Amino acid sequence: KALARSGIELRCQCISTHSKFIHPKFIQNVNLTPSGPHCQNVEVIATLKDGREVCLEPTAPWVKLIIKAILDK
Amino acid sequence: KALARSGIELRCQCISTHSKFIHPKFIQNVNLTPSGPHCQNVEVIATLKDGREVCLEPTAPWVKLIIKAILDK
Repeated sequence: KALARSGIELRCQCISTHSKFIHPKFIQNVNLTPSGPHCQNVEVIATLKDGREVCLEPTAPWVKLIIKAILDK
Repeated sequence: KALARSGIELRCQCISTHSKFIHPKFIQNVNLTPSGPHCQNVEVIATLKDGREVCLEPTAPWVKLIIKAILDK
């Protein structure tokens, strides 16, 4: 599990990021948290339909594509 | 309040969307929910730093720009 906790936290939530492609059909929602005083990293956390939460790499092209696909659908 | 409830719901969460630009500095996080059996709309919900939750229009250019800005920061 690469996620410290869910919800609004006072520190970074992602310890590591999932590197493999996840098909959008498995994604229930995606949460984007800008960097800020609580954490210097942008954090992208996907909740999967099976309930798992995974941290994604904000700079990965496939992550940007998935987000674009959700918005454009 | 244009938001029915927060969390994972079995129906649409957004009743209406906020039409005015919100500066990214006021945004704590953004949650993207693809359309699905629970709701036919893509839902974009921003949590502001003052705790308010606002629904944004996924097709609005400024909403896409804010999401891009968060990812690229």
